[in-house]
Amino acid sequence: MASAVETTVETTVESTVEAGKRGAAAASPAAPASRAKAGARTAASSKRRVPVVPAAPAAAVDVEWLGHYLLGTWAEARLESRRVAGRPELQRIEGLSLQEHRERVFGQLRLLVDEGAVNKAFPKRLGGQDDHGGNIAGFEELVTADPSLQIKSGVQWGLFGSAVLHLGTEYHHDTFLPAIMNLDVPGAFAMTETGHGSDVASIGTTATYDAASGEFVINTPFRGAWKDYLGNAAVHGTAAVVFAQLVTKGVNHGVHAFYVPLRDADGSFLPGIGGEDDGLKGGLNGIDNGRLHFSDVRVPRVNLLNRYGDVSAEGEYTSSIASPGRRFFTMLGTLVQGRVSLDGASTAAAKVALQIAVTYGSQRRQFTAGSDTNEEVLLDYQKHQSRLIPLIATTYASAFAHEVLLTKFDAVFSGAHDTDADRQDLETLAAAFKPLSTWHGLDTLQEAREACGGAGFLAENRFTSLRADLDVYATFEGDNHVLLQLVAKRLLTDYSRKFAKADAGVLARYVVEQAAERTVNGTGLRRLAQNVTDHGSTARSVGQLRSPKVQRALLTDRVETMVAEVATRLRPANKASKKKAADLFNANQNAMIEAARAHAELLQWEAFTDALAKVEDPGTKTVLTWVRDLFGLGLIEKHAAWYLIHGRLSPQRAQSVSDYIERLTARLRPHALDLVTAFGYGPEHLRAPIASGAELERQNEARDYYRDLRASGNAPLDEKALKR
Amino acid sequence: MASAVETTVETTVESTVEAGKRGAAAASPAAPASRAKAGARTAASSKRRVPVVPAAPAAAVDVEWLGHYLLGTWAEARLESRRVAGRPELQRIEGLSLQEHRERVFGQLRLLVDEGAVNKAFPKRLGGQDDHGGNIAGFEELVTADPSLQIKSGVQWGLFGSAVLHLGTEYHHDTFLPAIMNLDVPGAFAMTETGHGSDVASIGTTATYDAASGEFVINTPFRGAWKDYLGNAAVHGTAAVVFAQLVTKGVNHGVHAFYVPLRDADGSFLPGIGGEDDGLKGGLNGIDNGRLHFSDVRVPRVNLLNRYGDVSAEGEYTSSIASPGRRFFTMLGTLVQGRVSLDGASTAAAKVALQIAVTYGSQRRQFTAGSDTNEEVLLDYQKHQSRLIPLIATTYASAFAHEVLLTKFDAVFSGAHDTDADRQDLETLAAAFKPLSTWHGLDTLQEAREACGGAGFLAENRFTSLRADLDVYATFEGDNHVLLQLVAKRLLTDYSRKFAKADAGVLARYVVEQAAERTVNGTGLRRLAQNVTDHGSTARSVGQLRSPKVQRALLTDRVETMVAEVATRLRPANKASKKKAADLFNANQNAMIEAARAHAELLQWEAFTDALAKVEDPGTKTVLTWVRDLFGLGLIEKHAAWYLIHGRLSPQRAQSVSDYIERLTARLRPHALDLVTAFGYGPEHLRAPIASGAELERQNEARDYYRDLRASGNAPLDEKALKR
Repeated sequence: MASAVETTVETTVESTVEAGKRGAAAASPAAPASRAKAGARTAASSKRRVPVVPAAPAAAVDVEWLGHYLLGTWAEARLESRRVAGRPELQRIEGLSLQEHRERVFGQLRLLVDEGAVNKAFPKRLGGQDDHGGNIAGFEELVTADPSLQIKSGVQWGLFGSAVLHLGTEYHHDTFLPAIMNLDVPGAFAMTETGHGSDVASIGTTATYDAASGEFVINTPFRGAWKDYLGNAAVHGTAAVVFAQLVTKGVNHGVHAFYVPLRDADGSFLPGIGGEDDGLKGGLNGIDNGRLHFSDVRVPRVNLLNRYGDVSAEGEYTSSIASPGRRFFTMLGTLVQGRVSLDGASTAAAKVALQIAVTYGSQRRQFTAGSDTNEEVLLDYQKHQSRLIPLIATTYASAFAHEVLLTKFDAVFSGAHDTDADRQDLETLAAAFKPLSTWHGLDTLQEAREACGGAGFLAENRFTSLRADLDVYATFEGDNHVLLQLVAKRLLTDYSRKFAKADAGVLARYVVEQAAERTVNGTGLRRLAQNVTDHGSTARSVGQLRSPKVQRALLTDRVETMVAEVATRLRPANKASKKKAADLFNANQNAMIEAARAHAELLQWEAFTDALAKVEDPGTKTVLTWVRDLFGLGLIEKHAAWYLIHGRLSPQRAQSVSDYIERLTARLRPHALDLVTAFGYGPEHLRAPIASGAELERQNEARDYYRDLRASGNAPLDEKALKR
Repeated sequence: MASAVETTVETTVESTVEAGKRGAAAASPAAPASRAKAGARTAASSKRRVPVVPAAPAAAVDVEWLGHYLLGTWAEARLESRRVAGRPELQRIEGLSLQEHRERVFGQLRLLVDEGAVNKAFPKRLGGQDDHGGNIAGFEELVTADPSLQIKSGVQWGLFGSAVLHLGTEYHHDTFLPAIMNLDVPGAFAMTETGHGSDVASIGTTATYDAASGEFVINTPFRGAWKDYLGNAAVHGTAAVVFAQLVTKGVNHGVHAFYVPLRDADGSFLPGIGGEDDGLKGGLNGIDNGRLHFSDVRVPRVNLLNRYGDVSAEGEYTSSIASPGRRFFTMLGTLVQGRVSLDGASTAAAKVALQIAVTYGSQRRQFTAGSDTNEEVLLDYQKHQSRLIPLIATTYASAFAHEVLLTKFDAVFSGAHDTDADRQDLETLAAAFKPLSTWHGLDTLQEAREACGGAGFLAENRFTSLRADLDVYATFEGDNHVLLQLVAKRLLTDYSRKFAKADAGVLARYVVEQAAERTVNGTGLRRLAQNVTDHGSTARSVGQLRSPKVQRALLTDRVETMVAEVATRLRPANKASKKKAADLFNANQNAMIEAARAHAELLQWEAFTDALAKVEDPGTKTVLTWVRDLFGLGLIEKHAAWYLIHGRLSPQRAQSVSDYIERLTARLRPHALDLVTAFGYGPEHLRAPIASGAELERQNEARDYYRDLRASGNAPLDEKALKR
């Protein structure tokens, strides 16, 4: 079924590609140049490619339709949140002091409450909407107003409130949630400590049950166990969910969460509690991050958020999950929405960056190249295209992948599909996408900044400020490398299950043979792998690479081969000492992370390809297919050395991948503005003077000035011209 | 001679490598693991590599000697400037408002004057020292105090003052320089316009000579011609060097520089002058960048900085340089020191980042891997090593390359070697190195930031603030891509000179044959290029790749082949119309920039190798040779696809490059701290709490706490342990 669809898509694409190519050639000044280059390499095929007359209309994107499609399942929530984010009172003012920015954002949280923008995920019986997907979709869009606003609201409702919701039970919901929802109690999510960020299981804070008083006693045993980097902790938080090692009857039952009041009505710390301000950060300075420490702080027994583990009045510990390890991961798993939402927010920021940079690049002119008087538009330069257009492709991939993730998240959290396996899949998916999209967001903001030169460095044009704020997205809610390791471990687990009964010999044979096997799966890889007889027609090479089946096969093969290789190398760890096993894992850490990244890239590609299948408008489908191909072939080019080393691509074909990418990029140039306009952000979200049309006005004014000057006969002669 | 030296080096290295490998293995927890991985692939060779007893002492770096060596020719100027940068009054205070930061930095400029830190490059007869190399070396080190201080002093003395010095003549030196040197006249360097940054030749501002009054009349004809992004223009500048199209007697003689008073004693604009504040930027907010425009602003004829072009009282234009194009480039060439100094400053910032991150990575612990109680030091994780140690290698390459550039700069500007060819070489070298080092600085700051997690995001730990400031180094004083294009054009010019008389047929044959030619040059490339019979010993593959001759050959071959390929494709441009030629160039823009980058990388590698030849201490030489190999092989790995596609590396050997890089990285792990300590920055320059030893104290406190708790018998039992 799937492959039938693919074949259809492919056929449609192949024919529309030809039509579109001719059309785009007419529209793009860069396209003929690109062909000239290709022509220098393969003279025969280039002749056919040079257009005499644009014979077919250019493929065109239905921007409105595509824009709506990109909004996804929770389009309404996104649009509503964009409306809210468009309110000037909710937007970032650059250059505020730390204190001013913190107070402004705190005030903005109240506006969000007034807008009813923050309660979607909470229970209906408490005034919420039980709408988990819509909640995250809306939350993500707030990044366009001010990432500080987004993250501070995330701290309050996504972390602090969510912990009470997901780790607590009815008593906690009834007692604490209303004041959290309406911001009467701003709170901190006190998990990370100065000494432990990624390794939450090893935090030092303890909550020891005192049966005599029926209280938990919370303590910070040493400086490294101070809670740290907590939003709302420095100033605004009057309560916190504190994660601590639960100790009762002399046994440590691992990390649990406790509801702990922090400050009195005057904002002073309650007895036994102290803290520090984290001070200025690289970004997100609208949030008052700080440190907390506890000395014999007592909370009632019922303040334990007891959904997954409870302590009786007498101090007996009980849990519905027998395994302490599984219990821990189940508790942490409820917090996956942080990762889901950062994935979406980073993608939104990349969209904003590209909408600004591509708009400017389509208006800004610099250097006369092919003419004496007309300067070239930046986006007509090959390098400028190569800098921005592949980032558009990755942003589309990231957006479609995020929709898959968000759908999965909603299915799990709504209870529609909430098995253990579903939760594990969700966590793996979030751990796979969040690193890629947060890094992509940063790379895109930086490339866009540089592509706009000095203008890009002005705070008013948004890039630098957004980048500074989003920097930390790469390490919070799970350090990106640690997340990719989680993905790798899941891949290895799945792999070893598949071969649970295979002895070492079988396994080794599998690794050696699998490439050969793959080639007979009808994916065409055998032909791709031919090293010597593969010369000749670049066109045919390219034709195969355009096939989604071939792209999928290449990307899948790489993941599977890498996982198999790592698994084989790790096999001795089963029988080794703990130390030796750890050394073996460590020696394969880079390879594991690379395999996870390859897996995540494949999933993005699949999400893009699945999304493409639902596009009906031929023009939009054609252009988006080029975008998907640019993304897929871009991955293959990035990992070309791997494909060459493993005999999956011939040198000839690897070269044709790069050549074709240049052609695709040039072909997409006339559609670049449509593709970013479909992201759908208005001037109220972009707020960048360089994307306001001011540059076009300046260019026109300058051109008019020189035209009039030439016409007047008063233009000075050029010394250069005189010398000729 | 050169090759004799290389052979000696290689022999020494080969034997000490073996000794060092055993030594490092004993010291590094990661090394055995790395070998285990290699062993899984080549069982026979791994057996020999597993150490039974550390038989030889570990190679050790002579940190003090290396530190002094890194200071280079102008060690004294660097140390003196580091002393100045160590003064708290000159250092950045995070979190100041725009106004406060601007005023603080302006005040700091006066302190620099008092320190006598800014006049080195000016003539002795005016109180300077005629010391160009020392001036730049000292200037670069100021980045550790505050990049805003550095760049604002660069605007005043490196741009504004330098323009008067290098583009003016004795009258201008006597009249203007004293007040510039002592900061009585803060000034702007008014070259860039809103509409023209990279393309200076096309600026719109005009200076039309009025023979009747003996004055130049300066005008801004349209909004795009406003001067923009100028330091000192928003507030402090009372004069400027203004670049404008010089028009006299109806002829435009191209861009010239004029000394123009801007503001009166009250700080108000003089008649005809207006401007705007550029406002907040992504960084460097201690500098008051702004815009200027001119309406019929008159300056005396003698305010033309007339070293390269003059206008008589009657309006006759004369120049010592007949070609307007060459004249323009000669004038701009005097400003190369901006690029030189950014190259050095970015390298200094990378050093600071690595000294902080490696110190923290050597103390911070996270996750127990091979033990129940001891957490691993971050830098013992393979991924952490792979993130930071190759950046150390590139930083060394960048530092040694900068020394070459600075030496060349001093030779030209001191007049010792100041031919046209010398100036062109200097400009090409600066255009090659500045892009690589400024990007490397940003990449290093970012990787270091992420490697330090949440702590890295706190402003107090320096990364985010330095990165925000250095961001613009990638596009100012020449956009990095535009600079690489200049390098590419130079490479193509050299190439075409070599083949000036060759017809197209000869040229094409050369391209095809040159790989074959290269293999008979005794560089061993023929064996490297064998695709099929190349299986077998990884050890032998690696042995060859360790040879500097082989590394050099591979890097050189890539540059030459890429240049030849581009040249061949561009050949039709000679006979094409201007438009078609431009299209052809544009279609090869990516390839040109890549060739230039490859050339710059080769030059860095050569600078490193030359610097290595002068190291005498065996331990230092051994370790630095590993570092150089890591850099060189890192480049080859980065471009592995190219080497594979072009048949220069077999798949087997390309794989062994990556394997060997992992081994080298692990082998360097025990030396990482020494290597960054040799950068020589003290606590007064690092100023990062995470690199102060505080983390080690916290780790020790936590470990002591748990040890004492275990010893006391009061430690709670672990539920997990109970279940086992």
